[in-house]
Amino acid sequence: MTHARVFLLGLGPIGIEVGKAILTRSDMNLLGAADPMPGKVGADLGILLGMPPRGDLVVGEARELYARTQGSRGHEDVAVVCTGSRLDQVAPQLEQAVDVGLHVVSTCEELAFPWQRHAEIARSLDKRARERGVVVLGTGVNPGMVMDRLPLVITSACVRVDKVRVHRVVDAAKRRGPLRAKVGAGLSPDEFRQGVSQGRLGHVGLAESAALLASGLGLPFSGVEETIEPVIAQVDAAGVTQGRVLGVKQVAWVTHGEQPVVELVLEMYVGAEAPRDQVWVEGDPPLEVVVQGGFQGDRATVGAVLNAIPIVAASPPGLHTVATLPVVATLPVVR
Amino acid sequence: MTHARVFLLGLGPIGIEVGKAILTRSDMNLLGAADPMPGKVGADLGILLGMPPRGDLVVGEARELYARTQGSRGHEDVAVVCTGSRLDQVAPQLEQAVDVGLHVVSTCEELAFPWQRHAEIARSLDKRARERGVVVLGTGVNPGMVMDRLPLVITSACVRVDKVRVHRVVDAAKRRGPLRAKVGAGLSPDEFRQGVSQGRLGHVGLAESAALLASGLGLPFSGVEETIEPVIAQVDAAGVTQGRVLGVKQVAWVTHGEQPVVELVLEMYVGAEAPRDQVWVEGDPPLEVVVQGGFQGDRATVGAVLNAIPIVAASPPGLHTVATLPVVATLPVVR
Repeated sequence: MTHARVFLLGLGPIGIEVGKAILTRSDMNLLGAADPMPGKVGADLGILLGMPPRGDLVVGEARELYARTQGSRGHEDVAVVCTGSRLDQVAPQLEQAVDVGLHVVSTCEELAFPWQRHAEIARSLDKRARERGVVVLGTGVNPGMVMDRLPLVITSACVRVDKVRVHRVVDAAKRRGPLRAKVGAGLSPDEFRQGVSQGRLGHVGLAESAALLASGLGLPFSGVEETIEPVIAQVDAAGVTQGRVLGVKQVAWVTHGEQPVVELVLEMYVGAEAPRDQVWVEGDPPLEVVVQGGFQGDRATVGAVLNAIPIVAASPPGLHTVATLPVVATLPVVR
Repeated sequence: MTHARVFLLGLGPIGIEVGKAILTRSDMNLLGAADPMPGKVGADLGILLGMPPRGDLVVGEARELYARTQGSRGHEDVAVVCTGSRLDQVAPQLEQAVDVGLHVVSTCEELAFPWQRHAEIARSLDKRARERGVVVLGTGVNPGMVMDRLPLVITSACVRVDKVRVHRVVDAAKRRGPLRAKVGAGLSPDEFRQGVSQGRLGHVGLAESAALLASGLGLPFSGVEETIEPVIAQVDAAGVTQGRVLGVKQVAWVTHGEQPVVELVLEMYVGAEAPRDQVWVEGDPPLEVVVQGGFQGDRATVGAVLNAIPIVAASPPGLHTVATLPVVATLPVVR
């Protein structure tokens, strides 16, 4: 069995959980972590992961981390990058990892389909990755599963696809603080609009999912349209005063000719009823698939990252998407 | 765009529909078909596909078909083999196609995970395919999607999987005659048991799905256990007399240690209520996914075959499974 060696960049809530999960896996070694945040840099990684001390201190700079295996770099070495949503900010970290010969798995939402907003970075990353013989992948649950990979997989059993619609409903009351903040829960409508215009509020990655889904369906498309609106409390509810913001409703769609062919609706707000993920395919055959309760966002993102590690280490080099990699790295276990 | 050239072997109900579907695709050419059955061999392929005559006659032997492109064989040439469920019977056709340098996509159910019942054939096919630089794949909706690929894709967002259970319910009354016959609708219980013992009745591929799912989950397993029972009419219903057989209930399971970790339940009978496909994952996070009404078996198998054609033509050589190939052949369309 291939034994992946993992460097972890970014010890926010997702990075911490990815680190913990790696420690449970017999087919992976965690070689260390980097996070420049005061209180994290210099701390014992084991303690940060809620385990006994490991005698392995968190470093501030990825290059210090990568120096640990200089001269013994293997094809199973992977950098897991959980540092941000915006590709222009994360790209230097990705490039640095690629340049030292590491595969990259990242939760950076815009990396799920980087051609959507950052075509130049995408081309450059793909070229570097091919030159170094490594894979770069953006993954997670959304983008990465609910609104792109899952619909593509089910439509792979369709003779013809006319339209795909996905609806994800998340009850922000049941999620950690950062998600409540991200959807603007408790803000006034004006504060919400200001947050959106400054790029501080809302889900990042919806347009990437729409573009990945459309292009995976083989549709030529020239762009993705998007709207983002607040969901307003009609009565006092779950700590939010009437008239203030419960959360967000975002829609992204792609048209082909005059017809909408991809439509993604994401509702994340405090008190949302019947949380679920739902995919409708108009086509031959038509399909309706429901994920009861919806994928639990944080845990499923950790799972997606974890499971991608052996896949990237076994795949052809270049910039990939979740649609261009298989779900299992190698041929099945043969008795 | 890669332009696949397709040879079609087998003009049963699925082969015919695959042929029709290929004719609707601008990225594929149908180069001809073979079927030795009287009334098919020598007939105009267009007419058999319910279209205008093509002046392309169905041949009896695949080798006559392959001779059409001798000397101009390309890496986009694919043989689609829809001739049977049992790998020992279909294997010579697969080997012949591989030996002339064709990729193979087949609905042969036992090819979905050939190591399960025919490890020697699997090893030999894999070796030949690698030597010739082609891909061999068994696909369809079941096996190929409902009970293996779909659960593997959703569990790729799980940090930990303890158990996967899949339940598929098909109303045989709504399906074509061959399915009613395959599930034994209308037989006496004795006739049913006789048909099962002779291998004429029941769904082929359940053990293959169980093995593919278990091995895709990375579980070591030593075998798949299976049961098959008739579903008996309690009252006269849908043309079946009380006490006779409505259809079949099949179960396959894999244990790991003492625990069942994969459990597949397939019910196909006349009048089955609430047809659906349902997947439960016990793990972190837990998941429950429902395909409302279930994948329509025939159409979805045609879709799975059709969509696999460009994938195999772009993938690394060898014997594959639906789990080891991506859902999209190449990197997404870039604007």
